[in-house]
Amino acid sequence: MAIELETGLPSVRQIQNLIREETEVELKLVTGDLLAGKVRWQDSDCLAMVDQYDQSTIVWRQAIVYLKPRP
Amino acid sequence: MAIELETGLPSVRQIQNLIREETEVELKLVTGDLLAGKVRWQDSDCLAMVDQYDQSTIVWRQAIVYLKPRP
Amino acid sequence: MAIELETGLPSVRQIQNLIREETEVELKLVTGDLLAGKVRWQDSDCLAMVDQYDQSTIVWRQAIVYLKPRP
Amino acid sequence: MAIELETGLPSVRQIQNLIREETEVELKLVTGDLLAGKVRWQDSDCLAMVDQYDQSTIVWRQAIVYLKPRP
Amino acid sequence: MAIELETGLPSVRQIQNLIREETEVELKLVTGDLLAGKVRWQDSDCLAMVDQYDQSTIVWRQAIVYLKPRP
Amino acid sequence: MAIELETGLPSVRQIQNLIREETEVELKLVTGDLLAGKVRWQDSDCLAMVDQYDQSTIVWRQAIVYLKPRP
Repeated sequence: MAIELETGLPSVRQIQNLIREETEVELKLVTGDLLAGKVRWQDSDCLAMVDQYDQSTIVWRQAIVYLKPRP
Repeated sequence: MAIELETGLPSVRQIQNLIREETEVELKLVTGDLLAGKVRWQDSDCLAMVDQYDQSTIVWRQAIVYLKPRP
Repeated sequence: MAIELETGLPSVRQIQNLIREETEVELKLVTGDLLAGKVRWQDSDCLAMVDQYDQSTIVWRQAIVYLKPRP
Repeated sequence: MAIELETGLPSVRQIQNLIREETEVELKLVTGDLLAGKVRWQDSDCLAMVDQYDQSTIVWRQAIVYLKPRP
Repeated sequence: MAIELETGLPSVRQIQNLIREETEVELKLVTGDLLAGKVRWQDSDCLAMVDQYDQSTIVWRQAIVYLKPRP
Repeated sequence: MAIELETGLPSVRQIQNLIREETEVELKLVTGDLLAGKVRWQDSDCLAMVDQYDQSTIVWRQAIVYLKPRP
């Protein structure tokens, strides 16, 4: 459980941009689930998502397959 | 098996709030299982859940996909 | 392969209680398998289970989703 | 979350070549998904892919099974 | 890729006994596969199995769910 | 992303022999895929395979379940 979020990583910085710009994204998870919504915050273990009904979900990084910004 | 729970992480703090407020949550697991109940305690390896029948379940963090507080 | 079992962790201590009290438990594994039996011993990599026919099984911690003590 | 990308690894160097040569590749993911496109950049956690519609996808290394350059 | 095999671990020692005694075992893998045979050797990453046709298989520890000695 | 390949490990040495002897092998992957071909090189993260059409595939070690030399 490293606590520092490696903000030097391009992937971490890209997610910070998506948070700041409140971009709609799709997260594909290891169960095959597809979560749509906006990333609210990230830490070294998780990403917090919020959907169109303002319902929040804490997603574990270990379970993320890919993230796709919605065009 | 790091022993310290990183209470500096937003995701760990958020779970501590859910424990304190006894919030109903849904845990999605890598097998596709959906566990409903309240989080009783957490450590660096596991979360302890208790369901509506007061039956407890120790869930390994490695198997968690996402956590959704119930509205 | 850390060798020390973190006995300071609530989850490790809870399993030690289950071993001492010879409690019947259910283990859900990443393949969806459900193993019923008693935990005989634990180390940092594995849990040893024994079933009703006294058949033993070494289960890798990495493959455990959750553990449920049987009521 | 190690930040350094191990450019000494043949596998990391091979991906750098694929990025420079803008080679079409296929990524097989743990969900069985097959992503086709070009690798835009890589870091220690992720690969960034772009498809034929110029849509980008951040893929977590943990979810990659294999990468096949397209003949 | 730690190189030392933690022979202090009960689970590692138990496998050493199974190797010495040439015990028939069943290995359940994350894909659901069930491998039957004898363990020939183990290291920190893998177990080497040999089946009834003397065909050998190198199994990655990361993919092992459980090991069951055959009665 | 440790960079050193642990050539002291029997499993790593065995793969080095398979590379040198250009032995045909089968790789079982976590998705259930079965890759047939020869191992060309290995590093701490990946194995490079080449199939009968001389098509190369970079396989992530994390996704390997077992390797079977073809009789």
